[in-house]
Amino acid sequence: MSVVLLFNQKPTEEWQRNLQELLPETKVEIYPTISNPNEVEFIATWKPHENYITEFPNLKVVQSVGAGIDHLLHTKIPESIKVTRIVDPALKQEMFEHVLACVMTSMKNLLTYYKDQLNKEWIPENYQSIHETTITILGLGEIGKLVAEQFVNLGFKVKGWSNSPKNINGVTSFSGAEELKSVISDTNFIVNILPLTEDTEGILNKNFFDQCSVNTVLVNVGRGAHLIEEDLVEAIDKKQIKEAYLDVFREEPLPENHPFWVNEYIYVTPHIASVTNATTALQQVAENYRKMKNNDSLLNEVSLNKGY
Amino acid sequence: MSVVLLFNQKPTEEWQRNLQELLPETKVEIYPTISNPNEVEFIATWKPHENYITEFPNLKVVQSVGAGIDHLLHTKIPESIKVTRIVDPALKQEMFEHVLACVMTSMKNLLTYYKDQLNKEWIPENYQSIHETTITILGLGEIGKLVAEQFVNLGFKVKGWSNSPKNINGVTSFSGAEELKSVISDTNFIVNILPLTEDTEGILNKNFFDQCSVNTVLVNVGRGAHLIEEDLVEAIDKKQIKEAYLDVFREEPLPENHPFWVNEYIYVTPHIASVTNATTALQQVAENYRKMKNNDSLLNEVSLNKGY
Repeated sequence: MSVVLLFNQKPTEEWQRNLQELLPETKVEIYPTISNPNEVEFIATWKPHENYITEFPNLKVVQSVGAGIDHLLHTKIPESIKVTRIVDPALKQEMFEHVLACVMTSMKNLLTYYKDQLNKEWIPENYQSIHETTITILGLGEIGKLVAEQFVNLGFKVKGWSNSPKNINGVTSFSGAEELKSVISDTNFIVNILPLTEDTEGILNKNFFDQCSVNTVLVNVGRGAHLIEEDLVEAIDKKQIKEAYLDVFREEPLPENHPFWVNEYIYVTPHIASVTNATTALQQVAENYRKMKNNDSLLNEVSLNKGY
Repeated sequence: MSVVLLFNQKPTEEWQRNLQELLPETKVEIYPTISNPNEVEFIATWKPHENYITEFPNLKVVQSVGAGIDHLLHTKIPESIKVTRIVDPALKQEMFEHVLACVMTSMKNLLTYYKDQLNKEWIPENYQSIHETTITILGLGEIGKLVAEQFVNLGFKVKGWSNSPKNINGVTSFSGAEELKSVISDTNFIVNILPLTEDTEGILNKNFFDQCSVNTVLVNVGRGAHLIEEDLVEAIDKKQIKEAYLDVFREEPLPENHPFWVNEYIYVTPHIASVTNATTALQQVAENYRKMKNNDSLLNEVSLNKGY
């Protein structure tokens, strides 16, 4: 039996070496160099090509090596095949820290002052304090919940929005499409941490920005496909929102001719808000392989219907 | 009897109007337009000229309208005259928030990414996490204590240094000149919130930077005179520290030809870390005036010998 690593860009040789150490009895191969596709029961993958499933007649498990599974949605996976993802406990905290950095930088105008410094200009600005700042978190799953709680602890006013109602201490929670306006029309920050599903794809669109207010700052650490990129540029031009901190994009790296690079109110970071730790991921892959062999239930199995 | 406002640059007319409203029975005048210097018992001041004391033979109180009193030290004040300062409770929190913004921006490389964005470059960097970051606070007075406690709450490792030993939950505290090396030689951030005194003037000097390490970031929100500016430039050139976030300077606004403006590793903000709230300050000035008239002990009286 064998495990196949099927990645579209990661440093797979290193992963192969490390996973082989964790599973010494098992053949760990890299797609497309596979000795016998009939022997493959387990695939660990990131952004596989379409219909890869059909190449492995005895496949039992598709393991996403990241927190998301939206990269698997292009291919119909039969119900007999289990799908699972990585849950890295450090990732939630890292996401919070990146969002906190964006929020504090914006509140205290640090990028404005850096632009002033480039012009040797000394221009004190008004600044916002934590107690007068509202943060709206879109998505209250594992990650969103921790981010919301940490901002509450710091003294921010926090609103949350998710698919189903949630009860989180100190967080005013809303759910469902009809309540979205309540959380985005009157807030200083909107932080997107939604999972990418059919319902949330393109949710940050013209209609969304029409309901925002001129002082609102968007922080997108979800997925690039949550955002209709041209609608954001228009919303900023029309001063429907103040500025945006973006860490994820439809195409990554961001193409050289992309308008975001030169927009004065859009700040680009190169998808660094939270990077799944390779060691953590490999350990969970190995554990899930063993669980599959023992017919135990897998770690972090997901429902492809819900999309998370 | 009258109160005199003696400022070197603030918008004094507005202060006069507002203080007059709080003290309707009292004459509030602006230096040098004073009807009778013999009637002046109380001066509210910021950066007065030297020897102003001698112009008011019946002076009883000198009230600094900010948190610091170092701007008064150029003039000998007789012991019969009381000196007092403003303690703005909001100011401590604002100082923390500004320092947090600098710390998070540095840890998550946001200014580096902004520079990359100007060049349309997509370069993911390694980033630091809170649990692996040590912050050293120089100065554990009212402000430094709150800043230290807030960083502890966020999960940072925090060391503190002050004139006399302090006991603050979660903070490893050191004191005295001989223990300074212990807090600055092995830390990610050094945050200066010391009061400016004879002992601390120029404390951030060549000898200090000689003991720092290449990964250390300096955040100066104390006073400009704590720093020997040319020694910082040299320390950065020699990679004795990594970078510096400076909010206070020997001359403000920072002169146009100052080397800090163009140093790639020095970030300048225009003295905005914490601005004493005018309303809070005026209320404390009015209250101290009334206390003086009633022979009550004053709010926030300070010892000029200690300097804080």
